[in-house]
Amino acid sequence: MHILVTNDDGILAPGIAALAAALRPLGDVDVVAPESVQSGAAHAVTFNAPLMCERVSVDGEFFGWSVDGSPADCVKLAVHELCETKPELVVSGINAGANRGVDVIYSGTVAGAVEAAFLGIPSLAVSLEASGGFDFERAGGIARDVVARALEIGIDPGTVLNVNIPRLDRDDPRGVKVVRQSTAPWTDAYDRRSDPRGRPYFWLTDGGERGPSDPPETDLAALRAGYVTITPLQHDLTEYQQLDRLSRAWRRD
Amino acid sequence: MHILVTNDDGILAPGIAALAAALRPLGDVDVVAPESVQSGAAHAVTFNAPLMCERVSVDGEFFGWSVDGSPADCVKLAVHELCETKPELVVSGINAGANRGVDVIYSGTVAGAVEAAFLGIPSLAVSLEASGGFDFERAGGIARDVVARALEIGIDPGTVLNVNIPRLDRDDPRGVKVVRQSTAPWTDAYDRRSDPRGRPYFWLTDGGERGPSDPPETDLAALRAGYVTITPLQHDLTEYQQLDRLSRAWRRD
Repeated sequence: MHILVTNDDGILAPGIAALAAALRPLGDVDVVAPESVQSGAAHAVTFNAPLMCERVSVDGEFFGWSVDGSPADCVKLAVHELCETKPELVVSGINAGANRGVDVIYSGTVAGAVEAAFLGIPSLAVSLEASGGFDFERAGGIARDVVARALEIGIDPGTVLNVNIPRLDRDDPRGVKVVRQSTAPWTDAYDRRSDPRGRPYFWLTDGGERGPSDPPETDLAALRAGYVTITPLQHDLTEYQQLDRLSRAWRRD
Repeated sequence: MHILVTNDDGILAPGIAALAAALRPLGDVDVVAPESVQSGAAHAVTFNAPLMCERVSVDGEFFGWSVDGSPADCVKLAVHELCETKPELVVSGINAGANRGVDVIYSGTVAGAVEAAFLGIPSLAVSLEASGGFDFERAGGIARDVVARALEIGIDPGTVLNVNIPRLDRDDPRGVKVVRQSTAPWTDAYDRRSDPRGRPYFWLTDGGERGPSDPPETDLAALRAGYVTITPLQHDLTEYQQLDRLSRAWRRD
């Protein structure tokens, strides 16, 4: 099995090293990842500028390609140009921080996996909940188990599995749950400050707890309860429930 | 009615000037838009750096605020900090180039509207198909008609209407169609070149026609046929059809 690994924290992030190492027993692993941190890059794609690539070695050994672009750029370029054969699986991560609920819209980690789906390759995005530090080695083992099980079950070419691992500094995860995405909004706000010249600037702050009363079958609630969560994602954003109503209403013109 | 206008082509782009002018008869228009071009920025959001804002005047008159961030940053900051009252409607555009099919995943224009939906504000994203040049003034009139009709019909707070206007250099649009999003993939590829030092770099190229056999009820096909298209969007990416199957399969562990 030919596996492409990418991320949005950059090719030198500890999460991608742990993921690549964990997946090597499952197949041939190619790493193509952003040169720099792309957190919050969402599904950015570079078409107004060229992409440069560099071979990156770690401890004297070739580790992978860095690309001066987004996770989506990395996957697109890897599949079209850098990999010798088309990857059979793409795994993006391990992100330092969870990507559940509407995070999936903002997440570069998820975007790398969604880009794979566009290209007809099954994919997983893997993120680890923050808990002060991050035990990526242990998270890598959990990711490998999830990937192996997903391959046994079979994932369709267009499917993305969004995987979140709960914080690992307390008990072991309570198990694996396949759950839907929460749509609870962020509770963010801005910290207003003044620069040395008295001009205002704004910094996004973490809000309070999101979706406190979300039902247990959402990724937000299940992760909070200590489960590894798996949410299958698609990329048709149509709001089908409104399609007919709007269509009829518009025709009454 | 208090309307917030944003875009992803930057505050000085002709499309946003035409949109703001076209919407002024419908209410009080605030403009908060990126300082620089953010095309392909998708739903990027800035939390690792502060956001700076500047008051921007055009022809000696205050036009709006520029923000050194993405369209999503602009909407978030406008709603939380820059607007005196919460906008009742957000309109993002007019983008120079269509945003139909899977473009919605990459599009900063759409992201500005989706961010508004997260914040509980009804919103529209408006994009104009390329045809050599762009007749934004005429597109502005079409956008105003669509916005006015949408307000008559009523849009729910969480809803985004993704509006595409066909190229205006040929016949008039054939009408308005409410259609679903196409999921046909891009047909892009990379042009491989060498820099003056012989190092390779890659530039994303336009592929051939996308979804040539897409059915007429998709945004891709309806726009191609010369209709103004409207697609209601939501932000739950869950692939519900796979949720049960995967859930059962995983439990067989």
